[in-house]
Amino acid sequence: MRKDLERFFNPRSIAIVGASQDLATISGQPLKHLISHRYLGRIYPVNPKYPEILGVKCHASLEALPETPDLVMVLINAARVAETLRECGKKGVPYAIIFSSGYSEVGGKGVDMQLELAAIADQYDIGVVGPNCQGMINIAGSVFAGFGSVYYSDYDAGSVSMVSQSGGFGCSVMNLAAKDGGLNFRQVVTTGNELGVSSLDFIDYFIDDPQTDIIVGYIEGLKDAHRLLEIGAKALAAKKPILAWKVGNTVQGQKAAASHTANLGGAMALYRAAFRQVGIIQVDDIQDVIDYGRAFQCGKLPAGNRVGIITISGGAGILMTDECVNRGMQVPQLAPATTERLRSFVPSFGSLANPIDVTAGIFNDPDLLKMTLHAVLEDPNIDSIAMINASLQGEIATKVAAEVAAVARESAKPIFMSWSARDEVNSGAYALLDAAKVPHYKSPVRCGRALAALSWYVEALHRHEVARGETVAVITSSQARSTLAGRTDDVSEYAAKQILAQYGIGITQEEIATSKEQALAIAGRIGYPVALKVQSPDIPHKTEAKAVRLGLAADADAGAAYDEILRNAKAYKTGARIEGVLVQEMVSGGIEAILGVTNDKLFGPAVMFGLGGIFAEVLKDVAFRIAPVTKSVALDMIAEIKGYPVLTGARGAAHADIDALADAIVRLSALALDLKDHVAELDINPLFVFARGKGVKAGDALIKPVVRN
Amino acid sequence: MRKDLERFFNPRSIAIVGASQDLATISGQPLKHLISHRYLGRIYPVNPKYPEILGVKCHASLEALPETPDLVMVLINAARVAETLRECGKKGVPYAIIFSSGYSEVGGKGVDMQLELAAIADQYDIGVVGPNCQGMINIAGSVFAGFGSVYYSDYDAGSVSMVSQSGGFGCSVMNLAAKDGGLNFRQVVTTGNELGVSSLDFIDYFIDDPQTDIIVGYIEGLKDAHRLLEIGAKALAAKKPILAWKVGNTVQGQKAAASHTANLGGAMALYRAAFRQVGIIQVDDIQDVIDYGRAFQCGKLPAGNRVGIITISGGAGILMTDECVNRGMQVPQLAPATTERLRSFVPSFGSLANPIDVTAGIFNDPDLLKMTLHAVLEDPNIDSIAMINASLQGEIATKVAAEVAAVARESAKPIFMSWSARDEVNSGAYALLDAAKVPHYKSPVRCGRALAALSWYVEALHRHEVARGETVAVITSSQARSTLAGRTDDVSEYAAKQILAQYGIGITQEEIATSKEQALAIAGRIGYPVALKVQSPDIPHKTEAKAVRLGLAADADAGAAYDEILRNAKAYKTGARIEGVLVQEMVSGGIEAILGVTNDKLFGPAVMFGLGGIFAEVLKDVAFRIAPVTKSVALDMIAEIKGYPVLTGARGAAHADIDALADAIVRLSALALDLKDHVAELDINPLFVFARGKGVKAGDALIKPVVRN
Repeated sequence: MRKDLERFFNPRSIAIVGASQDLATISGQPLKHLISHRYLGRIYPVNPKYPEILGVKCHASLEALPETPDLVMVLINAARVAETLRECGKKGVPYAIIFSSGYSEVGGKGVDMQLELAAIADQYDIGVVGPNCQGMINIAGSVFAGFGSVYYSDYDAGSVSMVSQSGGFGCSVMNLAAKDGGLNFRQVVTTGNELGVSSLDFIDYFIDDPQTDIIVGYIEGLKDAHRLLEIGAKALAAKKPILAWKVGNTVQGQKAAASHTANLGGAMALYRAAFRQVGIIQVDDIQDVIDYGRAFQCGKLPAGNRVGIITISGGAGILMTDECVNRGMQVPQLAPATTERLRSFVPSFGSLANPIDVTAGIFNDPDLLKMTLHAVLEDPNIDSIAMINASLQGEIATKVAAEVAAVARESAKPIFMSWSARDEVNSGAYALLDAAKVPHYKSPVRCGRALAALSWYVEALHRHEVARGETVAVITSSQARSTLAGRTDDVSEYAAKQILAQYGIGITQEEIATSKEQALAIAGRIGYPVALKVQSPDIPHKTEAKAVRLGLAADADAGAAYDEILRNAKAYKTGARIEGVLVQEMVSGGIEAILGVTNDKLFGPAVMFGLGGIFAEVLKDVAFRIAPVTKSVALDMIAEIKGYPVLTGARGAAHADIDALADAIVRLSALALDLKDHVAELDINPLFVFARGKGVKAGDALIKPVVRN
Repeated sequence: MRKDLERFFNPRSIAIVGASQDLATISGQPLKHLISHRYLGRIYPVNPKYPEILGVKCHASLEALPETPDLVMVLINAARVAETLRECGKKGVPYAIIFSSGYSEVGGKGVDMQLELAAIADQYDIGVVGPNCQGMINIAGSVFAGFGSVYYSDYDAGSVSMVSQSGGFGCSVMNLAAKDGGLNFRQVVTTGNELGVSSLDFIDYFIDDPQTDIIVGYIEGLKDAHRLLEIGAKALAAKKPILAWKVGNTVQGQKAAASHTANLGGAMALYRAAFRQVGIIQVDDIQDVIDYGRAFQCGKLPAGNRVGIITISGGAGILMTDECVNRGMQVPQLAPATTERLRSFVPSFGSLANPIDVTAGIFNDPDLLKMTLHAVLEDPNIDSIAMINASLQGEIATKVAAEVAAVARESAKPIFMSWSARDEVNSGAYALLDAAKVPHYKSPVRCGRALAALSWYVEALHRHEVARGETVAVITSSQARSTLAGRTDDVSEYAAKQILAQYGIGITQEEIATSKEQALAIAGRIGYPVALKVQSPDIPHKTEAKAVRLGLAADADAGAAYDEILRNAKAYKTGARIEGVLVQEMVSGGIEAILGVTNDKLFGPAVMFGLGGIFAEVLKDVAFRIAPVTKSVALDMIAEIKGYPVLTGARGAAHADIDALADAIVRLSALALDLKDHVAELDINPLFVFARGKGVKAGDALIKPVVRN
């Protein structure tokens, strides 16, 4: 499949198959839009019915064209598309947009029809966009290759590039963001069912595109989801933020899976994990795209998340503080020197605590305003400034804006403004801020949220840099692989833990005994107290069969228990295959955690962590990461869950061995990668996490092997 | 204090004390604004320095005025306000707005100055608004009595009334909501420090005001917070929704309290509880006020929370589904009859599941659109419709809007629209929707959020109606009151539970023994196994003193334990006062919950519920309600916590006795009210909640008495 999308966005010639003389229809619009937006390349309407449309010569077929067009727009009934695509192939067409609907989105026969198109695209190496999409707009290049209401408008070219799987919504985002939000786009493409070129192909291209600074994505689902990690990392390295929707988050009826890990995950948990791992900024609404986009366009990144708030409205200051803190920022106290400095020239200040509540007087004296900004900017505790001007307008507003713009131009720390005066009455001031790239917002909440998005991105950059510097743990075990090869039934307890042990994950001391004497010998080696459990592929519920005995203190107890367990097992299920009796150490103390692996068909192996019991099962308080997981990422995962304080000594407990826990997660990630052809799901439940320095031990484990049909 | 605010908002005459000829200043603006907005009453500038301002005769003093003004605006230095307020009093002025700053907001001497003003206001019965505020606007009455940028504009009068404790932010809200959001206000008042007339006084007045339909509040903190319940209930009865900010939610450094209940609460938890109890809709940003305000202006309330989504953009449909479901709505399947009906005339539909993905074809045929809307509206599973038109514009858009408007006019179920075409290109269609009161939003997220706010309000109305129909439990215990009267030290375990028992809350069986014989007799009555615990005011940590023995199975064990406990207690603390040994039943089974009372100085007694252990302590997963709490409210509290599934049989446990738990909460609420002069804080921790039908039992309790200085 073609991936050099430069030619796609800048075609020298475009053919429109199915072009119609009814310019209001879907097949009539594209020619009109290309012409009205002054497309500079050659246009070939293709329709045997017409000699010309809008004065442009119309051709009977693709074959009849005088040249091979760079892009073919296909606007005909779904049933006839395959034939046309074949003609494209024969003609050597590099790119086609298929607008037609009626494919995988309708299910049934549509799915097969889409597969047929994919095969043709493959055969002829055609880069297909769509089907079931609304086309592409390259604003800077004057290519409006699609249909829909928003194609009727002109747009200023900017540096934001967007790919959207939804045509209608994607077009709305561009239109509203550009026209009402002042966020200007460079190129926008809608991809529909994505039989060929995918959202990630486009994002990949946008990262390489020197004219693109900010990338926006609307994602319903990715067929090549694992690539999100690679693409996201590339975007981070290029410092091009990706703002993305991931929708379909509440869809019910997800098939219940056999393991906790698979039940607790689902696509959304993995997308969230991937977004966090590579710093993709999740957006909820169009306003977020505008607000965050404008934040990033300031061209500065704060060193950290500590904001100094300067306000003339105490109320707005409180609102912004709430928003910043809720979104993970700090509103720290100023350094004493800063407070002294402010006090020296602004004796009438309402409050020198952060948020700094200034009186309106500060606006009457540009020098005072400048000194205030400088004092806060130079505070070592402060990484950015958010200033609140309420509804200030008129002559004084322009003076204030000029002063802020001048200070911002010389400052490496971002200055954001919450300014509620309407554009109509304050355009002069806003123009000054825009020229100096000072982001400004109509409400303190939007301002705080945008600044928090910027700060979150900076943290993601740092996290990613640290993770990149770490060695990825690679552990291989041919023994584990051969244990699992060809296996179709679940691997439980003893055998599953033996596999964990191959990867250096701590397990309880245990051995299988096939005679009472052997059992007692093992117990002697492990040391009392011990537990005895029958091992039988025919008895999955050992406790129910009364084939488990815990806390056995001495040989006499263990011997009696051995006999009893075998008796009960046989009574429970006649003819049960008994592999032996597991003699296991009794674990005391420790916090119960749960670790897991889910081998997702889109993301590949992912690792899960949660605390045991209600945390995971009732509260779904778990964290996922896509493998490979390095140590710092494992630590980030551990700290992410709400129950984290349980590990750091809440309720008077000992501080848990978080380092060993992180190490176990890293090893589990290595296992998941090494065994990715064999392990479908894996649960370690419980994993005992002991006090600092005492390590972890898997208490029980279950592996669901990959079963091939 | 005066509370008839009709005169305040419609003064026949206004005096401006401190009026200035410099019309740009705070003291110069008010006269200018009154005149430019064509105030119809008489205006009296008061300033001995000037003969006239803007052609209006200026007076030397309040005393010199030819009449008693209905409203005095005070715009002078804080130090001189008390004198002016006294003059107001002597003259019989009913209302004064004090704009001056430098009072409680600066602390120290300012607090005393404000107290002085309050005393004067009280003495002369002056309704004082402020100090430290920006005044009042009555748009319909042409009274612009204040200063600030937004006073320079004209506004259309509407039916939204707002009170804001923040001047700057409140004014910004009105300005942006009215001018950019099309939400028109009737009257707006900013109240600053609220030494006299409070936010709740204003809300109370707005409820009574026949011209007000929707009330907006910006709240930093209420001195009369308990009244929020009464005012909220009154607003619900009048079906006037209150949209409110409560800010200051993340302020750190709240003083740590002694009990769990007080630590887990804090002002914000109680505000949230009160908002839920009386259906006050919390807003986060200005856009919410606009969007929710426009939702309520449709004049229809859905019967329930089940929305039918009709969309031409699959992507937007998913986004709206996510938003609706996240905010507590249902997107249910259509009734089979509806699906059949749709299929009969719209064979080409993309998807007949909800969200209903319609093809663009539906817009080309007004009859089809009408039939689709009717089919969904008449579905018994559907309470409201949200329709998504993407960026539809042009002639067809106007036709669609006309059809939707016609259907909406005849429908009792609300129809909301997400329509992303810009106002500029779609004003005709939007005017038709506005005329039919069909709320429309630029994004599916905003549309879904607004519809969810409407649905939440309907649920709050239902909840409140049910609660109003219930009898409030009233229980009095003179014995409990006399136990607590004058008490300054904590009341623990035995005595605290005896008080609970007075209110019918189940407690463990237990009695105090002062001899070994008595202990054995009690144990005999209770039945073995029992626990023995020393009771001494000098030994708060009984376990540490080894003065607790659990699970005693027979007389011999109990007798030995009795001696041992006394020996250990005496060894632990020489001279400890021993009140006896508590003989207590051993509780087995049950889920550990925690109940509490906090007697808040603003809200009065409030009741807390949570699950024990990490739920409450680590996750802060608790629910509060202001007393009195009826049964249905108690059940709502119980269902509110995230750990709720633990009570309904999660992890294979028995379904807990939620009915008995709710009953205990109701009784605790009765206790809190009966003992409100005596109980500062109360914890029941743990409360054992047994399986359905088996009730609850307080395992331990602690009461912190109210201590008067």
